[in-house]
Amino acid sequence: MSAERLVVIGGVAAGMSAASSFKRLKPEAEAIVLQNDHFISYGACSLPYYISDDVKDINRLISLSPEVATKERGITVLTRHEARSIDPARKTVTAVDLDGNEEKTISYDHLVVATGGLPVRPPFPGIDLGHIFTLRTLHDGIEIKRFIDRWTTFEPCVGPQCVYVNPFGAEKRPMRASIVGGGSIGMEMCESLRKRRVEVTVFEKMDRVLGTMDTSITNIVEERLAAEGVNLMKGVSVQSFEGDSGSVTRVITDKGTFDTDMVLLVIGARPNTKIAVDAGIELGAGGAIKVDDHLRTNIPDIYAAGDCAEATQMVTGKKAYIPLGATANKQGRIAGENAAGMNNAFEGVVGTAVTKIFDLEVARTGLSPLDAEREGIDHFVSTIKGRSRSTAYPEGKPITVTYVAEKASGRLIGAQMAGNEGVAHRIDTLATALYNRMTLEDIARLDLAYAPPFATVWDPILVAANVALKRLQKERQL
Amino acid sequence: MSAERLVVIGGVAAGMSAASSFKRLKPEAEAIVLQNDHFISYGACSLPYYISDDVKDINRLISLSPEVATKERGITVLTRHEARSIDPARKTVTAVDLDGNEEKTISYDHLVVATGGLPVRPPFPGIDLGHIFTLRTLHDGIEIKRFIDRWTTFEPCVGPQCVYVNPFGAEKRPMRASIVGGGSIGMEMCESLRKRRVEVTVFEKMDRVLGTMDTSITNIVEERLAAEGVNLMKGVSVQSFEGDSGSVTRVITDKGTFDTDMVLLVIGARPNTKIAVDAGIELGAGGAIKVDDHLRTNIPDIYAAGDCAEATQMVTGKKAYIPLGATANKQGRIAGENAAGMNNAFEGVVGTAVTKIFDLEVARTGLSPLDAEREGIDHFVSTIKGRSRSTAYPEGKPITVTYVAEKASGRLIGAQMAGNEGVAHRIDTLATALYNRMTLEDIARLDLAYAPPFATVWDPILVAANVALKRLQKERQL
Repeated sequence: MSAERLVVIGGVAAGMSAASSFKRLKPEAEAIVLQNDHFISYGACSLPYYISDDVKDINRLISLSPEVATKERGITVLTRHEARSIDPARKTVTAVDLDGNEEKTISYDHLVVATGGLPVRPPFPGIDLGHIFTLRTLHDGIEIKRFIDRWTTFEPCVGPQCVYVNPFGAEKRPMRASIVGGGSIGMEMCESLRKRRVEVTVFEKMDRVLGTMDTSITNIVEERLAAEGVNLMKGVSVQSFEGDSGSVTRVITDKGTFDTDMVLLVIGARPNTKIAVDAGIELGAGGAIKVDDHLRTNIPDIYAAGDCAEATQMVTGKKAYIPLGATANKQGRIAGENAAGMNNAFEGVVGTAVTKIFDLEVARTGLSPLDAEREGIDHFVSTIKGRSRSTAYPEGKPITVTYVAEKASGRLIGAQMAGNEGVAHRIDTLATALYNRMTLEDIARLDLAYAPPFATVWDPILVAANVALKRLQKERQL
Repeated sequence: MSAERLVVIGGVAAGMSAASSFKRLKPEAEAIVLQNDHFISYGACSLPYYISDDVKDINRLISLSPEVATKERGITVLTRHEARSIDPARKTVTAVDLDGNEEKTISYDHLVVATGGLPVRPPFPGIDLGHIFTLRTLHDGIEIKRFIDRWTTFEPCVGPQCVYVNPFGAEKRPMRASIVGGGSIGMEMCESLRKRRVEVTVFEKMDRVLGTMDTSITNIVEERLAAEGVNLMKGVSVQSFEGDSGSVTRVITDKGTFDTDMVLLVIGARPNTKIAVDAGIELGAGGAIKVDDHLRTNIPDIYAAGDCAEATQMVTGKKAYIPLGATANKQGRIAGENAAGMNNAFEGVVGTAVTKIFDLEVARTGLSPLDAEREGIDHFVSTIKGRSRSTAYPEGKPITVTYVAEKASGRLIGAQMAGNEGVAHRIDTLATALYNRMTLEDIARLDLAYAPPFATVWDPILVAANVALKRLQKERQL
């Protein structure tokens, strides 16, 4: 081996970012990406919009093809190559070419593990029946859309390639989908499936959708689901699946049995760490690969980035597992830079996310009230209802803003919002506030943009800060 | 005089905020507001949308009537009372009841001067002709709309109350308006008047619209104006107006003469300080009333707030005159709180503003490149074109982001943006960055919300920071 070489396991967000930033800094070095799929560098976050048919062409989800990665960035991409083991002593990775079934051992100077996450798939009886889907890879999205397309168009299905059969033939009963898990992907899929005229039932274990979000926000989402005809079953545990002719037809829960034509398991993701663990790489928060602020693992010259790695939650200063696409890109880039000899730190995240749920924008950053409770932070929660536009200006919409603040310091530690417009980017202002450890008093002083079409003269962010400050005074008097 | 008394001169944004916050803290004390108009507490920023007919009812612009202010907040509002002089030695204000023409002398314990701004009205020959309007008060807006309404509906005009005559009778030539000044109100009025099918010519002295904004942004605005049929005359000085029968019909400039049916003078605002100056109150930045961080003037117990007062531009730490509605509300509130015995500071502004210009959102915060030059700050400017949504998601729109950064520190000192969506609130993230004196490197690390309908995975804010960082490296190598 002549040239210095980076090997990257995984070719989606973090992996391709790592290879790209490495090659940008060291064009003379070699970067090899091992990807167990045909596709690299795709935006899985857009899959609900592909399934809904808002996006017709799956290629729009792919930001980089292996050919372009090679031609324009000088990256060697080995698609359909599954990495099987890492030998840290010899500094090699062994991979199998899934098509040729040939094993290859590739040496590395630097290794980035970017194996991503895996969908949680509990061992329910019947879990292996047909038409039970997860939604993580491009293939998952393609499979789901193909199934819905076939059902909703009632195409006659003949020949060996015909996997999905509408058991009702040409009968025009709408398709029934069961979504297991009321998290953000589950919520996005409600919109997606309703757009396809599919009947949707959501099964959620907890007392609310969207995990640990505050009920001031989740109540708004649940109202919207009801208005859109989604059947939400809260506090319900799925126990097993039953089927006919190998395909799922019934969801068995502790609250009864539900007929269904497909199941979507969106219970969450767990870090894909097997290859790392086998190589002696330590795990940290949430079972993800333990990394320092330079994204180095415990083994020299091995980095980890993206959905397989932990990150510092900057609000608490503690490591956490918060797998999100934007973070994967940032971590990948920095891991690649450091592999190329830079000394760049990834400070962490504050946990900012936004989800479109029908015409609602729902966003969060920092700690939820439940997170704060678990962290043992003496906090309080304050909610206001503001408006997206000046009352004078037509068609303004309500915005609900919930702040979580630390009692002792008055510092904002989390914020959540729901509304029909102006939510997705307002949360970024609060994410910036968290990054800077701003107090409610600081936030109330922010000089935010005002014009009647976009805000009230006291922006909801400021109103929420002022109301929370009053609440803080009261809390402190108690 | 028994109860402690606050007197406020001016009853719009700052004045009513001051009286309200004072009464909230001291319900037993008295608060008297002197307002030279029928109306108090109105949102002048919405006037372009009233004139455009987006807002039909002028009452929607009024957030508080004198009756409600008295009933719900215990504030004594003396409308149509013009304050004429302040006697700081005796602690009295003399005002004239404009209806009864009666002079009243009112004593105060605390005084808040909230006299606002006045439109700049240069002494052009012919300036006093009819149909030459300014746009500042509710009355201004009502007059302009009434004039356009009459013209565009071709109502026959009879009787002594008939002020506006369409000189072309029932002939259906569209009305022609001349806007003098290409600032943000001028730009908003372009949209407003085009919606009313009025032909619009804008006369701007400078080489661009929107004052000191960067040409990377103003070029986009100017393209939009052209597409909407607005005739923009840049680098043109208006010299005089000429008319027929007492009404303006021609604008005389150094580049020729233009026929017109109305003129809108929106050249800017200057602080209304006569009463303050006469009382010995010192002036500061931009001829506005000099205030300390507690909004105290040089005279004990006299505060100033709103468009008549200066504010600290936090980016430079220097006093400046940046009259904006949201600032007026904040300053008024704090002046009232301090008059009530609190010890609250108004730290200042970063100069954040957003304007809707047709379907464009145009925003700024901090220093423009020209501002930075004037301040003698060694800076550089970096512009990117991003997108409002993921490329996969339909109907994304371009967003142009321009950063101004200090070379030595790499600190962001200003940001400007233009685009069709997602601009108005993205600027707030950068305003928050300025408040916290963040560097480009800090900004590149922000954990911003990502979902395909709202952003690209690297938000335009992050892309702009990364590109500016590369530029910074180059600048430093030079």
